[in-house]
Amino acid sequence: MKLVTYTFEGKTSVGKVVGDKVVDLSKAYEDVPATVLGILQGGKEVMSRLEAVRPEDATTIPLSEVKLEAPIQNPQKYLAIGLNYKDHVEEILKRGGKGPEHQMWFNKNVSCINGPYDPINLPKVSEALDYEGELGVVIGKRCKNVPESEALDAVGGYLVIDDVTCRDWQRKTTQWTLGKSFDTHGPIGPWLITPDEVPDPHALEMRLFVNGELRQKTSTGGMVYDIPAQISYLSTVMTLEPGDIIATGTCSGAGFGFTPPRFLKVGDFVRVEIDGIGHIENEVVAEP
Amino acid sequence: MKLVTYTFEGKTSVGKVVGDKVVDLSKAYEDVPATVLGILQGGKEVMSRLEAVRPEDATTIPLSEVKLEAPIQNPQKYLAIGLNYKDHVEEILKRGGKGPEHQMWFNKNVSCINGPYDPINLPKVSEALDYEGELGVVIGKRCKNVPESEALDAVGGYLVIDDVTCRDWQRKTTQWTLGKSFDTHGPIGPWLITPDEVPDPHALEMRLFVNGELRQKTSTGGMVYDIPAQISYLSTVMTLEPGDIIATGTCSGAGFGFTPPRFLKVGDFVRVEIDGIGHIENEVVAEP
Repeated sequence: MKLVTYTFEGKTSVGKVVGDKVVDLSKAYEDVPATVLGILQGGKEVMSRLEAVRPEDATTIPLSEVKLEAPIQNPQKYLAIGLNYKDHVEEILKRGGKGPEHQMWFNKNVSCINGPYDPINLPKVSEALDYEGELGVVIGKRCKNVPESEALDAVGGYLVIDDVTCRDWQRKTTQWTLGKSFDTHGPIGPWLITPDEVPDPHALEMRLFVNGELRQKTSTGGMVYDIPAQISYLSTVMTLEPGDIIATGTCSGAGFGFTPPRFLKVGDFVRVEIDGIGHIENEVVAEP
Repeated sequence: MKLVTYTFEGKTSVGKVVGDKVVDLSKAYEDVPATVLGILQGGKEVMSRLEAVRPEDATTIPLSEVKLEAPIQNPQKYLAIGLNYKDHVEEILKRGGKGPEHQMWFNKNVSCINGPYDPINLPKVSEALDYEGELGVVIGKRCKNVPESEALDAVGGYLVIDDVTCRDWQRKTTQWTLGKSFDTHGPIGPWLITPDEVPDPHALEMRLFVNGELRQKTSTGGMVYDIPAQISYLSTVMTLEPGDIIATGTCSGAGFGFTPPRFLKVGDFVRVEIDGIGHIENEVVAEP
């Protein structure tokens, strides 16, 4: 399923995308969860009931007529791994940085979450706005101390991420979180696609374009630590909850890696595509 | 008010502490918020209605008979500032570290939040469990780009924090968040005390004891960046929401600063006291 949070005629609801239509799931049965997060929390039973909803038995709306919102709106956690693509690590090493000996995790504060086609702010206080296209993993069930062999069972779905970053704020101190957490800097979507529709999450091509120019391109097979290794490691530390978002790392080609750097400016369009999932696209606007 | 989340006879409710009693607020009026977070979200109107509840008109329970829980259970964010006490910075400099040129923020993932008297785990994977006594600030109203002069208006209350840390995990990479986010490593409480009862949050004495031995002692006046500076800076980046927790930094005396280091072991009791607020106390147990 491609689960969406969408707004139509002023009302925000949950739905699933079938072909070029959104199937309204908000009236699928009494007490259907009101959010995609709630659907994940409902587990397999809820998921099966929603899979069984036939478009012909529900209200459908052309996909082109709805506004897609961030599929997950208020997760408990949004974690992201740094330096997790071989070519991105080489890019850092060339600039005199050090590669990590362990998985290197930081937070994007969840208040940064943004819709798949909503504008991203160029903050008044930053002169180094940058992009990072990534595959996002969303946790589907509560778990702690998960062995790698069972980690993919904890995945509730996948989505496309732009890990928007203010490089100047990322580097003010050793801790990256502020540079990763400006409001609007967490566009995700366009939907949460369930794992049954993603046969191999490590064999997806990801491409990022700025104003149509290809800047990043990789297979998700280029990860240093794969998805089971990430989930297992994180769950050694903390209980993962349904809806938690994991950004699995970016490849080379971000704006800071150019000489001179090619940071984002007002009016730029950033598009991230992942084959088999979908795309998101966000315009850069001046911070209101 | 001292707002509490408490469990009595198997039921968890909101209340306020008056003298040695807990006044049950859960039936104060129809639709009273079910959580302290909800009370904060309700703003001044809800706060005034709950202040007006007289113990003689409500159910009261002796404080000694309830179990106090973390007053805030599921905030959107839990941010903490590093190296924010002059003496703690000196301690770091002596060990060859660098002091920060800017406010240095990291996240404790909110899944680590724990009750004021609940056990904290010594993780199987850590050999360097440490403590950090801190004053906690809880946001009371949504805000963005708050000038320092107005920042204290955004405070919903204060509480006592132990920023429990696995030093070995904190140092595996440059990013601290995993070492700060183990389950149970966020004890807070014992209540949320509203700002009207804290005339000057920068003139409070904080003390931390391990098994009765004084390890940390400071006035909150020793902060490098004070509370208005912290709120203003954070709100430059992200919208702060009611319930968001800010750990305002620790002073010298944490276990890693001793030679040899004095890390926590199973059976230790860690007590953090802040005059005018209260205390929390947590026993170290083996990770279950």
